[in-house]
Amino acid sequence: MIVVMKPHPTPEMIQTMVERVEKMGLKAHVIEGTERTVIAAVGDERDGGREALESYEEVEKVMPILAPYKIASSETKPEPTVIRVRDLVMGGGNVGVIAGPCSVESEEQIMESARKVKAAGATGLRGGAFKPRTSPYAFQGMKEDGLKLLAAARDETGLAVVTEVMTPHHVELVAKYTDVLQIGARNMQNYHLLQAVGEIRKPVLLKRGASATMDEFLLAAEYILDQGNQEVALCERGIRSFEAHTRFTLPLATVPYLRQRTHLPVVIDPSHGTGIASLVPPMCTAAVAAGADGLIIEVHPDPKNAMSDGAQSLTPEAFEKVMLRCRKVADALDYKMS
Amino acid sequence: MIVVMKPHPTPEMIQTMVERVEKMGLKAHVIEGTERTVIAAVGDERDGGREALESYEEVEKVMPILAPYKIASSETKPEPTVIRVRDLVMGGGNVGVIAGPCSVESEEQIMESARKVKAAGATGLRGGAFKPRTSPYAFQGMKEDGLKLLAAARDETGLAVVTEVMTPHHVELVAKYTDVLQIGARNMQNYHLLQAVGEIRKPVLLKRGASATMDEFLLAAEYILDQGNQEVALCERGIRSFEAHTRFTLPLATVPYLRQRTHLPVVIDPSHGTGIASLVPPMCTAAVAAGADGLIIEVHPDPKNAMSDGAQSLTPEAFEKVMLRCRKVADALDYKMS
Amino acid sequence: MIVVMKPHPTPEMIQTMVERVEKMGLKAHVIEGTERTVIAAVGDERDGGREALESYEEVEKVMPILAPYKIASSETKPEPTVIRVRDLVMGGGNVGVIAGPCSVESEEQIMESARKVKAAGATGLRGGAFKPRTSPYAFQGMKEDGLKLLAAARDETGLAVVTEVMTPHHVELVAKYTDVLQIGARNMQNYHLLQAVGEIRKPVLLKRGASATMDEFLLAAEYILDQGNQEVALCERGIRSFEAHTRFTLPLATVPYLRQRTHLPVVIDPSHGTGIASLVPPMCTAAVAAGADGLIIEVHPDPKNAMSDGAQSLTPEAFEKVMLRCRKVADALDYKMS
Amino acid sequence: MIVVMKPHPTPEMIQTMVERVEKMGLKAHVIEGTERTVIAAVGDERDGGREALESYEEVEKVMPILAPYKIASSETKPEPTVIRVRDLVMGGGNVGVIAGPCSVESEEQIMESARKVKAAGATGLRGGAFKPRTSPYAFQGMKEDGLKLLAAARDETGLAVVTEVMTPHHVELVAKYTDVLQIGARNMQNYHLLQAVGEIRKPVLLKRGASATMDEFLLAAEYILDQGNQEVALCERGIRSFEAHTRFTLPLATVPYLRQRTHLPVVIDPSHGTGIASLVPPMCTAAVAAGADGLIIEVHPDPKNAMSDGAQSLTPEAFEKVMLRCRKVADALDYKMS
Repeated sequence: MIVVMKPHPTPEMIQTMVERVEKMGLKAHVIEGTERTVIAAVGDERDGGREALESYEEVEKVMPILAPYKIASSETKPEPTVIRVRDLVMGGGNVGVIAGPCSVESEEQIMESARKVKAAGATGLRGGAFKPRTSPYAFQGMKEDGLKLLAAARDETGLAVVTEVMTPHHVELVAKYTDVLQIGARNMQNYHLLQAVGEIRKPVLLKRGASATMDEFLLAAEYILDQGNQEVALCERGIRSFEAHTRFTLPLATVPYLRQRTHLPVVIDPSHGTGIASLVPPMCTAAVAAGADGLIIEVHPDPKNAMSDGAQSLTPEAFEKVMLRCRKVADALDYKMS
Repeated sequence: MIVVMKPHPTPEMIQTMVERVEKMGLKAHVIEGTERTVIAAVGDERDGGREALESYEEVEKVMPILAPYKIASSETKPEPTVIRVRDLVMGGGNVGVIAGPCSVESEEQIMESARKVKAAGATGLRGGAFKPRTSPYAFQGMKEDGLKLLAAARDETGLAVVTEVMTPHHVELVAKYTDVLQIGARNMQNYHLLQAVGEIRKPVLLKRGASATMDEFLLAAEYILDQGNQEVALCERGIRSFEAHTRFTLPLATVPYLRQRTHLPVVIDPSHGTGIASLVPPMCTAAVAAGADGLIIEVHPDPKNAMSDGAQSLTPEAFEKVMLRCRKVADALDYKMS
Repeated sequence: MIVVMKPHPTPEMIQTMVERVEKMGLKAHVIEGTERTVIAAVGDERDGGREALESYEEVEKVMPILAPYKIASSETKPEPTVIRVRDLVMGGGNVGVIAGPCSVESEEQIMESARKVKAAGATGLRGGAFKPRTSPYAFQGMKEDGLKLLAAARDETGLAVVTEVMTPHHVELVAKYTDVLQIGARNMQNYHLLQAVGEIRKPVLLKRGASATMDEFLLAAEYILDQGNQEVALCERGIRSFEAHTRFTLPLATVPYLRQRTHLPVVIDPSHGTGIASLVPPMCTAAVAAGADGLIIEVHPDPKNAMSDGAQSLTPEAFEKVMLRCRKVADALDYKMS
Repeated sequence: MIVVMKPHPTPEMIQTMVERVEKMGLKAHVIEGTERTVIAAVGDERDGGREALESYEEVEKVMPILAPYKIASSETKPEPTVIRVRDLVMGGGNVGVIAGPCSVESEEQIMESARKVKAAGATGLRGGAFKPRTSPYAFQGMKEDGLKLLAAARDETGLAVVTEVMTPHHVELVAKYTDVLQIGARNMQNYHLLQAVGEIRKPVLLKRGASATMDEFLLAAEYILDQGNQEVALCERGIRSFEAHTRFTLPLATVPYLRQRTHLPVVIDPSHGTGIASLVPPMCTAAVAAGADGLIIEVHPDPKNAMSDGAQSLTPEAFEKVMLRCRKVADALDYKMS
């Protein structure tokens, strides 16, 4: 890291900082400029100490050189991680599509959803059984009954099931039924939960927190990877900005940015990313054109009667059209849509 | 709520919406304007249904009338909630000060911290035993050993202990040692955790998530209140904005805004709110002048050697000065600093 | 608009509000709910008065029903506005591509830029002669000499020239040389400038301010349209959010959102939208796939020696590849790339 | 600045960068680390070139060391700039209060405003004659007639007049009548306007743009200072964040942050900063407690009939109470309220 001293440091102060840096196991290089003296601290700076350096009154700022994550980095593993579960393939040029309702509401609803998204070409089925809801008064999901219905839908259609787990205590239960464990945006920094899914050997779809930086996002993945689970897909689902005309702001530049830094697949959620059904189709084609490794899309057989997220759910008919257009874009750009 | 139809709705469409609204147990009033027809849906709209209404193609937008929270609302309970635990008093004109290190690091460190903040006038002692850290490679806290040291510091000084609990599974353990349970910003929407601390009968300090709206913040409190725990203090600790010169952006208008809407006390955390020790003192006096019911401030006997948050920790000497100035402001404006 | 009263208004207060609303030329409908009384004010609410209503202590909030813009609205003009200038066509299914350097630096540089972007298929040439720069110490542009070079490049290549005008006083001068007048993001709410370009009869490319809402953006266009200039293209160039890994956050959902509300063409600027050359190509294809009516891309014959924006400029070779891929996407989705 | 190379640079690449840095007049120091090679470029980096360095494919990032502004910096001038005009004093421990209506609406309105704010202790009078309005259909101000009424109010009361100038062409006119020229937030990066007020010898109140960083804000001031006008007050009026319960988010940490970096006085505008009259009083006292050098507050004799900003304007009675409380805080903390 680079330690920038305030103007006119005394030789003693510089000496103190050099010693401090060397005590951290780093090598110190002092560079005296015309307006500032900087100390370059060379070595693996990830073990921390930056904040302690910043607490010196004579220090103006400390700038890190290295990315704070390791296992998630494409420097550690240059070849892309490809997640394959049943027919769902994400990464390495493969675009996997996961579709289905926000919540599992009934056997009929989830079965119809599964059949229709399968028919349109999806290979993954989404559906929430445990639902994190902003209000304690909102529908909280069918819980284990919902998981059973998802498993039944998988058994009939062959779709890979993707469903959310909200608390460490439920990881084992959810893992029993699902193919992919989803960590929701609100739980991206629920570290006990990240560690718990890190101990499982099933793929994890990790959603970006609404105000998480890229480093925070990759460090959340690092918590999972660090426990030995190597199959983590990163899902961009929109950030909270000043924009209020959409539910969140969907930054598709996340796709190429992460591609340059990590080997993990990157999935886009245009449903939460916009919150408005009519904006979802163009964001799906745009995500494919941006190079996304997957899409996760809310589709409900009857959005007008959905128990949650109706406003952002596609009808099966709209989803079918989306799939056709996405496939055209994927073909044009030589991506494989499973 | 108010349903705004797109231009030129058919009579059938209006009729459908009226029926839909009435099926939700609300009363529908149709108002035909020159450019828009709106349907006012009268009654308790909190049971949901807004999104389902928005999923109709003929609907332009749906605007809620009522705040989504109930128990937290000052309409439900006009008189302020005052939280008293040992000598720490927050609410109703009382400004409680909680101070101490980011993390408990050793017996010597926490004892010295406790003695010094007590001497300067604090009535609460903060200190993390379970630490949520962005990186899996950072110090994660002393865990139960840390809790025991906090309890020992309380036994000697009489300070009320405030410490974080990160996962439902730990609530009982943490509650055994602490006086106030803190929910960190990253866990503001960890609903299982909120429910778990809702079942305890100890006060909770709930930190605002870095991108939580006021409604989301109050609904998080509602999760706790709804379980029967009536002692919740709301802590503003800064939001994530585009500003990068401070760690977070600290919006002190949160204090009077919440005062108008809720009976719960409002506490300010200027340490995380700025992330820079030299900015903390003026933000402390400003928070008192804005009418805050409490302050939670990071103080470390030796910030240069702190294992976390050194850059934003005050020395005991700086804290003493802060307390003197805060007390002057409190006296000038007739607030009681315990 | 909808006026929501605070709980338990007196009949006198309701009467006062009704009179107030009617004095504004609107018709008032009083709806008494269980928890709130609301007054629906029917008519053209755009003449203001909302803030005055909000200043009543007994009023909780006032919610507008109508969009604040008129001429820009697709309700006023449902068919898309198509801007055609030389071979550059934007709107109605046509995707026009404007490319070139950030600044005009020399005859050689702008000529080479023009020839190469023309060869790759661009129909518009960008290049700044008057440069708004954050620092007074940065290169401020070649001014009129730059304009002359742009005109010469147009004369040779036939490309439509797009260049920025920064102040009302320069509008006439810039209009003498350019085909399209660009209003930069920093000037989106420079109302005297908007009015000045509104009086000209040349197309305007209006860039979204970095923190402008959609309503503010469309109202800025309305300032131009209101002066009689009907050819305004809206350019999304990224917003300021908490994200710091890119220069700005580029929300492509702006394209379909605006498509639903306005007849004006929507252009994407992926160069400023990301600030990093390697992220520009996927954002170009994504913009086309999202339905954009145009692209404006920074291309420099030698980015390493560019006097401004080198880090986000494509080389001519990279631009050629981008054009090939964009064309494939446009073909796949039936858009016309001129 | 610090140039961080991508992993494993060739010796040729390092040599190229060294030459490049030296061509910029800077001295290059190469530091080879275990994971990265960095090149420290020593000297005055403000002349630019950072972006050109970033355009090299082998460069990962370039980090500036020095602040980009000079004249505004407290390194250039450590002692605080005190602005004195009539009885209005801002800076160096003096808290000047500017109050008055958003817009000048009539002789009676501005005269009554002036008398009342004077009686309550204000020393400056605000009032807009040229009004930047988001909508072209909103009231745009009384223009020169408004300026004349402001001057008349000054002649009677002795208050220093503060009013906005929107375009370079009006600078001379506005300067003829006013004591302080205000640059609005929307025009913070209107560089021709900044230069024009830089040529005048009257103090300027420069408002922060709603999404301006501190460096951008200080560079905007630098544009004015660089023309020779040394009297610039910096006004924080709130930033655009995701928060929608207030009009803007008011970050009071701006006060101590700027205090550490610049000698210029810092003024707070709690009226725009919150947009809600009932939140203004606690933000006024908080601003004084944070160390602000001035306040600019909207006060209207009849907010319910104000032509603009009624919802955020204080009545004269409310303003009087605010002044009493601010004075108590100022006294407690040893600030002088003129």
